[in-house]
Amino acid sequence: MSFFERLKTEASAEWRAYTEHPFIVGLADGTLPETAFRHYLVQDYLFLIEFARAYALAVYKSPQLTDMREAASGLSAILDVEMNLHVKLCAGWGLSPRDLEQAPPASEMLAYTRYVLDAGMRGDLLTLRVALAPCVVGYAEIAAQLATRSDARATTNPYRVWIDEYAAATYQEVATKARAHLDHLADLYVTPAREAELIAIFKEATRLDTDFWEMGWRAGLRVE
Amino acid sequence: MSFFERLKTEASAEWRAYTEHPFIVGLADGTLPETAFRHYLVQDYLFLIEFARAYALAVYKSPQLTDMREAASGLSAILDVEMNLHVKLCAGWGLSPRDLEQAPPASEMLAYTRYVLDAGMRGDLLTLRVALAPCVVGYAEIAAQLATRSDARATTNPYRVWIDEYAAATYQEVATKARAHLDHLADLYVTPAREAELIAIFKEATRLDTDFWEMGWRAGLRVE
Amino acid sequence: MSFFERLKTEASAEWRAYTEHPFIVGLADGTLPETAFRHYLVQDYLFLIEFARAYALAVYKSPQLTDMREAASGLSAILDVEMNLHVKLCAGWGLSPRDLEQAPPASEMLAYTRYVLDAGMRGDLLTLRVALAPCVVGYAEIAAQLATRSDARATTNPYRVWIDEYAAATYQEVATKARAHLDHLADLYVTPAREAELIAIFKEATRLDTDFWEMGWRAGLRVE
Amino acid sequence: MSFFERLKTEASAEWRAYTEHPFIVGLADGTLPETAFRHYLVQDYLFLIEFARAYALAVYKSPQLTDMREAASGLSAILDVEMNLHVKLCAGWGLSPRDLEQAPPASEMLAYTRYVLDAGMRGDLLTLRVALAPCVVGYAEIAAQLATRSDARATTNPYRVWIDEYAAATYQEVATKARAHLDHLADLYVTPAREAELIAIFKEATRLDTDFWEMGWRAGLRVE
Repeated sequence: MSFFERLKTEASAEWRAYTEHPFIVGLADGTLPETAFRHYLVQDYLFLIEFARAYALAVYKSPQLTDMREAASGLSAILDVEMNLHVKLCAGWGLSPRDLEQAPPASEMLAYTRYVLDAGMRGDLLTLRVALAPCVVGYAEIAAQLATRSDARATTNPYRVWIDEYAAATYQEVATKARAHLDHLADLYVTPAREAELIAIFKEATRLDTDFWEMGWRAGLRVE
Repeated sequence: MSFFERLKTEASAEWRAYTEHPFIVGLADGTLPETAFRHYLVQDYLFLIEFARAYALAVYKSPQLTDMREAASGLSAILDVEMNLHVKLCAGWGLSPRDLEQAPPASEMLAYTRYVLDAGMRGDLLTLRVALAPCVVGYAEIAAQLATRSDARATTNPYRVWIDEYAAATYQEVATKARAHLDHLADLYVTPAREAELIAIFKEATRLDTDFWEMGWRAGLRVE
Repeated sequence: MSFFERLKTEASAEWRAYTEHPFIVGLADGTLPETAFRHYLVQDYLFLIEFARAYALAVYKSPQLTDMREAASGLSAILDVEMNLHVKLCAGWGLSPRDLEQAPPASEMLAYTRYVLDAGMRGDLLTLRVALAPCVVGYAEIAAQLATRSDARATTNPYRVWIDEYAAATYQEVATKARAHLDHLADLYVTPAREAELIAIFKEATRLDTDFWEMGWRAGLRVE
Repeated sequence: MSFFERLKTEASAEWRAYTEHPFIVGLADGTLPETAFRHYLVQDYLFLIEFARAYALAVYKSPQLTDMREAASGLSAILDVEMNLHVKLCAGWGLSPRDLEQAPPASEMLAYTRYVLDAGMRGDLLTLRVALAPCVVGYAEIAAQLATRSDARATTNPYRVWIDEYAAATYQEVATKARAHLDHLADLYVTPAREAELIAIFKEATRLDTDFWEMGWRAGLRVE
């Protein structure tokens, strides 16, 4: 079993709670309240900024030039592509760049992003990559799974654009490369003691990323 | 007005929500559910470990030897004194060292401590000190205020030990020195643009520290 | 006077020693021993890798999204453009990629790059930018000045390619933007106490960058 | 063979150059020029400040509370004991605290300390401990070896105080504990790929620490 598979197996309860969260179910069948999605979109913008910082940290932390280039291309993908896509997606939901920039950060966004950044600064590149994995790889798995459902792919589903973006080949490849890089680093650096610590970090990061869905979900409950 | 007074004035709504939180009121009149306090105690143990890391970071960040010594004495106060006091206090509430060490970290604890650590790593020593201030100085203010209330000081109040610890001269001096050090750093390094950024960090840290009370408070609601 | 002009004025002795080092004089009139240049080229390759790490750190440290994008474009310029140019330049001097990758790092390269990285990690983005400035802006000034000399521009000067690269509009603009960004950050964050500390860092970084020329220069003396 | 023994074996050439440097020989037989020793003493003061920062970083990096306490006690030993001893030793050589504080940092001091700090920030606690080892353990080995020589222990040897300090049980125990801690971390975290990287860091740190002796040594040559 690959290292990433082992992480998921050890954290199977957390992984299921994350990938099958009501927010995801609501994206799939289109029943997610719009307020929930809008709140998520705004916080996800702030999240992307911190994720770019985490990728920059990965460049700084890299032991080899190839690791640096891999992380730098991820950084540039976030800053030059993903954030623009996100701003466009937000515009479609009536959210202006100003709305995004001036939004007060939610605790759930702060908790997950700062946990990743601190875990990465404290440990080495492998630790940072493990803390990033629930989001990077998880989004790809979630979207790929949703894309197999006919209701999710229906043109009437307002969340289809989001699903399409992360189910698309471009993002799926990003996630595949991230997994492969993680497995490669694990081949080089994992010992049993290390693996136990990394599993704990992976579980925590998965829980905090689940809280991110929960944050969006609760914003929907409040209003409707 | 000193720099710290300016921070509090700008963040007066956040500061009030923090220092007058129902959890604090419950400590004062003894009505706080024991479950709430116990949950707080456990998470506060995990919090102290991260706070020690933040003080270590302050040593690393210090531009001058005097700043280093100040931070190192804070670090040693946490690891050599405060944590032992805390373990003793916890024992009185039926919590063993094992209970403390094996407790799963609450999101609120992760959010506040990682926010402080990341803000401090990203910025300089002044930024780190601002992010630490709500807790370091806030606890002293809260306890000093509670210590003026006769119900809080009553021997029947189960939370008197906690109030006494932070209202005691030892801790009050720690907080007074921390304030003075912060004001000193601000004298050296604050510009208007910087002050605006530091106010934002102070507000955020105060909000996240308020969430910490809220976490304890909610643990009490769940049970009783 | 702009902030960068103030730095240069305060560090005028160091700046002159740096920009008028015998290594530079030898580049200008073509008398620099080839061994000196080759040694410099190899170490400059290792230097660029660390400079990429420093730019990544600048992304991580940035308080604003615009600062992040500025630093990320610098990072990508180093990894995607400058390093390839450098490898090509080295090939022209008989140095293979393997020669570059396997070269043992010189103390002077380690001293300057690690000083910059540590100063930047300890302080904030402005500190990091000040520590980077002697190299980023200095190379542009040196090359622009050399490009006004007819002997330097002569086709017989073997070092003309190096001069042309850094005197070219592309690099001059990089340096102009870096200066402007530095002045902008200084407008926001400089106080008199801060300026004194930054001058000390700028002087140190300039001295360590001068040692880099000296390292190359001495490699030439050893052989011829 | 323990991990530290393996490091020394792999770096045996560097280790010998470090522990048998002419500066050391001069300390042993008392022939080291006083100027050399004074220059070393001044730079060693600046070095200790950076070493305290490195120990603080070790606290921040620690994965376990026991690692934190170990590093914090090292930090406190440097700031509260070793630096005072050093100031006293310097006074005996006519160097005032002011002389120490105002000394311009030598490149060799900057190179070694910043290399350690950056290696430690980039990697994890084990990497930091490996980078610190040549100094922490090396001083103990050097002094223990010198203390077996009758000329070194003679009351006429002006450098006997230095030898006595590091050959004393107090310091020998510090080094023994540091070695044991390093071996413990290696048991937990070393893989073959990791060991290759750590050997490279250990060699580099040993070379840069050797440059520190060389710096003192050359100061002696310049004058006498």
